Amino acid sequence: MFSVMADPNFSIWERTALWSVLGVAILGLLYAVFLSVEVLGKDQGTDAMRRVSRAIRIGANAYLSRQFRAIALLILVLAALLYFTAGEQHIAVGRACAFLMGSIFSASVGFIGMNLAVQGNVRVAAASRTSFAEALKIAYRTGTITGMLTDGLGLLGGTLIFMVYGEQAYEVLLGFGFGGTLLALFMRVGGGIYTKAADVGADLVGKLERNIPEDDPRNAATIADNVGDNVGDCAGMAADIFESYEVTIVSAMILGWASFGHKGVIFPLLVRAVGVVSSIVGTYLVRTSEQARAAMRAIHLGYAVSALVSIAGFCLIGFYYLRFPEAGPLPGWVSLGVAGLDMRPVWTTLVGIALAVSINYLTDYCTAPEKPPVQFVARATQTGHATTIINGIAVGLESSVWAILVIALAVFGSFLIYQGTNPTYIAYGVAMCGIGMLTLTGNNISMDVFGPVADNANGIGEMVHLEKKARQTLTDLDACGNTTKAITKGIAIGSAVIAAVSLFNAYITDIAKLTGKTYGEIVPLLSISEPMVFIGFLIGGAVPFLFSSMTIRAVGRAAFLIVQEVRAQFKDKAIWEGTKTPDYARVVGICTTEAQRELIGPGLLAVLAPLIVGFVLHKEALGGFLAGIILSGQLLAVFMANAGGAWDNAKKFVEDGHYGGKGSDAHKASITGDTVGDPLKDTAGPALNPLIKVMNMVALLALPFIVRHEEGNLFIWLVVLAGVVTLSIVVYRSKQESPEVLKWQSAIEHVSSA
Amino acid sequence: MFSVMADPNFSIWERTALWSVLGVAILGLLYAVFLSVEVLGKDQGTDAMRRVSRAIRIGANAYLSRQFRAIALLILVLAALLYFTAGEQHIAVGRACAFLMGSIFSASVGFIGMNLAVQGNVRVAAASRTSFAEALKIAYRTGTITGMLTDGLGLLGGTLIFMVYGEQAYEVLLGFGFGGTLLALFMRVGGGIYTKAADVGADLVGKLERNIPEDDPRNAATIADNVGDNVGDCAGMAADIFESYEVTIVSAMILGWASFGHKGVIFPLLVRAVGVVSSIVGTYLVRTSEQARAAMRAIHLGYAVSALVSIAGFCLIGFYYLRFPEAGPLPGWVSLGVAGLDMRPVWTTLVGIALAVSINYLTDYCTAPEKPPVQFVARATQTGHATTIINGIAVGLESSVWAILVIALAVFGSFLIYQGTNPTYIAYGVAMCGIGMLTLTGNNISMDVFGPVADNANGIGEMVHLEKKARQTLTDLDACGNTTKAITKGIAIGSAVIAAVSLFNAYITDIAKLTGKTYGEIVPLLSISEPMVFIGFLIGGAVPFLFSSMTIRAVGRAAFLIVQEVRAQFKDKAIWEGTKTPDYARVVGICTTEAQRELIGPGLLAVLAPLIVGFVLHKEALGGFLAGIILSGQLLAVFMANAGGAWDNAKKFVEDGHYGGKGSDAHKASITGDTVGDPLKDTAGPALNPLIKVMNMVALLALPFIVRHEEGNLFIWLVVLAGVVTLSIVVYRSKQESPEVLKWQSAIEHVSSA
Repeated sequence: MFSVMADPNFSIWERTALWSVLGVAILGLLYAVFLSVEVLGKDQGTDAMRRVSRAIRIGANAYLSRQFRAIALLILVLAALLYFTAGEQHIAVGRACAFLMGSIFSASVGFIGMNLAVQGNVRVAAASRTSFAEALKIAYRTGTITGMLTDGLGLLGGTLIFMVYGEQAYEVLLGFGFGGTLLALFMRVGGGIYTKAADVGADLVGKLERNIPEDDPRNAATIADNVGDNVGDCAGMAADIFESYEVTIVSAMILGWASFGHKGVIFPLLVRAVGVVSSIVGTYLVRTSEQARAAMRAIHLGYAVSALVSIAGFCLIGFYYLRFPEAGPLPGWVSLGVAGLDMRPVWTTLVGIALAVSINYLTDYCTAPEKPPVQFVARATQTGHATTIINGIAVGLESSVWAILVIALAVFGSFLIYQGTNPTYIAYGVAMCGIGMLTLTGNNISMDVFGPVADNANGIGEMVHLEKKARQTLTDLDACGNTTKAITKGIAIGSAVIAAVSLFNAYITDIAKLTGKTYGEIVPLLSISEPMVFIGFLIGGAVPFLFSSMTIRAVGRAAFLIVQEVRAQFKDKAIWEGTKTPDYARVVGICTTEAQRELIGPGLLAVLAPLIVGFVLHKEALGGFLAGIILSGQLLAVFMANAGGAWDNAKKFVEDGHYGGKGSDAHKASITGDTVGDPLKDTAGPALNPLIKVMNMVALLALPFIVRHEEGNLFIWLVVLAGVVTLSIVVYRSKQESPEVLKWQSAIEHVSSA
Repeated sequence: MFSVMADPNFSIWERTALWSVLGVAILGLLYAVFLSVEVLGKDQGTDAMRRVSRAIRIGANAYLSRQFRAIALLILVLAALLYFTAGEQHIAVGRACAFLMGSIFSASVGFIGMNLAVQGNVRVAAASRTSFAEALKIAYRTGTITGMLTDGLGLLGGTLIFMVYGEQAYEVLLGFGFGGTLLALFMRVGGGIYTKAADVGADLVGKLERNIPEDDPRNAATIADNVGDNVGDCAGMAADIFESYEVTIVSAMILGWASFGHKGVIFPLLVRAVGVVSSIVGTYLVRTSEQARAAMRAIHLGYAVSALVSIAGFCLIGFYYLRFPEAGPLPGWVSLGVAGLDMRPVWTTLVGIALAVSINYLTDYCTAPEKPPVQFVARATQTGHATTIINGIAVGLESSVWAILVIALAVFGSFLIYQGTNPTYIAYGVAMCGIGMLTLTGNNISMDVFGPVADNANGIGEMVHLEKKARQTLTDLDACGNTTKAITKGIAIGSAVIAAVSLFNAYITDIAKLTGKTYGEIVPLLSISEPMVFIGFLIGGAVPFLFSSMTIRAVGRAAFLIVQEVRAQFKDKAIWEGTKTPDYARVVGICTTEAQRELIGPGLLAVLAPLIVGFVLHKEALGGFLAGIILSGQLLAVFMANAGGAWDNAKKFVEDGHYGGKGSDAHKASITGDTVGDPLKDTAGPALNPLIKVMNMVALLALPFIVRHEEGNLFIWLVVLAGVVTLSIVVYRSKQESPEVLKWQSAIEHVSSA
């Protein structure tokens, strides 16, 4: 079965190395199991706390299992389709199986991670009664479980496929990547809609109309809101980063094979293995004293330790492994004076680590309360709603400029390192930069999932009326989690862009392969001087705008339904007086149904748009289309994430007693900002990450058919026509209000005009 | 002097045609004079009305003359620089002179047009006392004066330069285009900042704090607000469209000469002449009955008549002129069965007319009160500020998708028409599509300037307390003007994109010429598979975001100062009770100074960014940069224009008595939407039009130097370094609050914390 392992081209050291990588992947998973046992062994607190936690867990699982049921059939159909896309029998089987494996791994990361998060929350709440340090440790380690699952499963899948298929792994890896990508799209979009519909719905009725605090147990949407944090921020985010993790390894292996043979494939796997080890070390070290202030420092320290271990590991492995005795003399900064040594792949991974650190810094700068951008927004709350919004838009627009410049700099770094060589080398450099950037995935996901766990623990604390000191501990943890969660958004977007650029490079390499031309012959076809490339490029740039508009509207529609339901339940006097438990399940049910329904439109757009462009306007236009999507997707995603983050923290700043504090007009304006930012930063923005990856992946998979059918045949045209019609209906329908909303609105109008 | 006219290559018919074109250009200018005399001969109303009008006129002229003084030196320096950019002596002189001519023409269109607008407004107000039809006619014809100036001067400049320089006209035309472009940038950005700072400042204190109506004479910012409408919507918009008008003719002539020789140059001039005639006919026909409803119909009818005259004229001229006897047999749809006839240039101009009509329709759909998008935003006002903003963002995002698809379709149309031919033919097709699109410039500018004239007339009516019927007439006219003004925004953006694409094509053609390579050899250099092109592309895409952020912040800063001044004046009891006239001039002065000061940053960004990218990253990256700017500039500009338009009309819809009408919570939310939309739709969005053209123009002019200095020399690097440092300072400073704002804010904080 492990055909490669018997291949005489691989030295005994390489075979051992591959087994070691597999071992490290399993080590990562075992570490996750170890942490799970540790977390689950903690005290679960009082009966009341368990009840709340149980409600959240049931709601979250109800959502995910419904989602998995809904897409299981689609996954099976696609697996069958993929079987027919590959040529040779054993590749076809491999691709279909890898697709299933990719989907299942992605789903598992979300499902298991979320399940542990909803069990960790109550334990954090329980620990908060006695110790801040212990509460932080539990919350962070719960996050690390998801992080290690991502690391472990991502590495395991890639390594296994390579060990079985060797040179042909590329064809199979595409299936693996696509599986993860598709699941991530569904979980990001569906989860994003769920979480914001519940959040906005709960706040509009609870905070604004009824003037009760967040997480008040009388609010029927409270459980749904807490479920939403897990569904969106935990499962959705984990699947998203898992996807980038997979996609970068897939493209590094594709491009590595084309550029450097098997060393080009084994090196990224080794780098990844180093990353897993360094994440284990770094995350294990995160512990703090009893002071809230020390928490962020401990988390940053863990991050720094992991980064240093990674850098040392990369350099060591590169130094001993990257020997190409047949290569001519190389400049000193490449060979370090050692004959045949080629350290360039190491340097590109270091560029990736620098990119990750810079993006974290930039995101922190744009969204941290004490920094100028948030201060600029916070000051504007004094002059009302409109100036708050305008300043937030200005901050968001500008932040996306710096983010894209940093990414351009990283690509430029890879270019400089490989300047004067083959273009596929440069593409490999970009992919390795992505590998380097995601080497600290374990830490990043720990920081991200820490957010919803702390948020939920705080919610539980509020619902069961914990004592004051514990409440303070939980509030501090929540604030800390909000910051770490916001920071990781930048990495998620940045890595999506680098992953998409790598896929895009693979797309170009593939055109050459499929048309039997050299790379040099392909280059002019994709020139921006070609009208078709330019047209594709304009269309591609528009897609993220359409997609965002659709997801924003979807949140609005779903939130309207929640508002209606919560209002209806409040009419029951017993619920309002707190003597009767509200029907939490009904709200969770509405959220679940709506999120599923609203998923269809954006999902179809993501899959059909590249197919239509490819079949109607051909491969060159599709190339321009992909470039356009990457550009406008990145700009829009960062704009939305950072404007949203700035509004969020401006509100917190005002709530901390500035400009009149809670209840003042400035506070009202800051709430408007936060409410506007919510769907942008938690639904539309993050959903763009999987979008740009899915579209590149679909293009890569469809390319053989596009090339074969460039002349066009009736069948393809019928398929395209069907696609266009479906898409038009979907776009049209996405703008309709659902019948319930319209009914409800006409009732309001009736009342307000009376 | 008219060397071309003695050139034996030109037939006697062609020489006659060129003189006729010149004649038509002068006819257009004479028509403008005729209309001016007509408008100025109308009754100027009461003394009170004249006083207000005079104040507005003085303010507007103070602004423009200050602006012209400020940039006169810059223009002279640049003219001298341009003299050194060209090789041969007579070309160098020509380019410098053409640059001056372009600047002066652009400035004149703005200056004269605005001057007549501020004299027309009082006459419209006077006429409103007796007749709606008469008032509409005066307002519309005042607009037509600016329209005919644009048409006439644009055509005159292009034709004269061609008649003098013939084959070498290209080199000189670049100077002409750059002059217009630069002036347009300054007038658009400065005017945009002026108009919104005054508007927001007047409304924040007047409407929200003091609860007095718009245009209340006690408000010290009233005159500045009315001045702003003229400065921004009249002078800025006219200069912007004049620029597109120039740039498309410049690139059509460049590409036409390369593709078809002199017929390729003369044909676009003939088409333009037809456009001037058809605009005269169409605008002259605009007259209406006494009913307000008939007004829009009359304006649309005039537009349709002009379009039909143009179409007929294009076909006739094409049929008799576009004969290429040496060409081989052409397909029937090209030759219409007539040997040697090539109707393809005609078809591309018709694509342009179709594009103009579609964009008008789309803009109208997205911003008209009765259509679904505005209704969607208006409904959201019931649920508060945040949902109003969110829905507006969703509408804006989606609208830019359809706009870009229509533009892509037009480019695709030009591609299909010239499919299988030389790539420069396709580029010529795109340029001709721009010519066709702007053929109705006279009508478009009439519709646009009609807006501020009607708005000002309404303001005068309010300030002198006209009788009720006249006030109703003016309100109806104002509403009508708001609609026509909003519609033409779409054309301004669309034509900017088409003009930029044409310049971009000229840039590519120029690379070939300057490097001594064939077009085919250049194509691969600009492939998106090249890392440097991709990097340029990422950076270019980011520039419109940075630029918008800068202009939005500029409005905020300037508006703060106005608010402070108006508040200070209201503290004078005599002003508040209406017994003392406020110091209008002081507010006008602050607006003028601030608009000038705030212009520097965005202006430098527009000029320096392409130079830095070109010299540091070289011509290929600059190509990608230009493509990125066009894409994200277009998407952002339409998003801002249409979101702003939708919020504006949603407010009007609520004010018409829906959802509780004026004073309700829904109305407050709708005001927030409108206030957020104002700087987007009137400052940041429109400023992107000249931005994308200026950057393409700068790239085209700098290209010879970039090519010559690709290897880099110390001098160039020093210049680049200086540019980077300046730009960093500018960007940094653009984020600082001005000292006055900070002082004032700390005062507020002091009060609110006390």
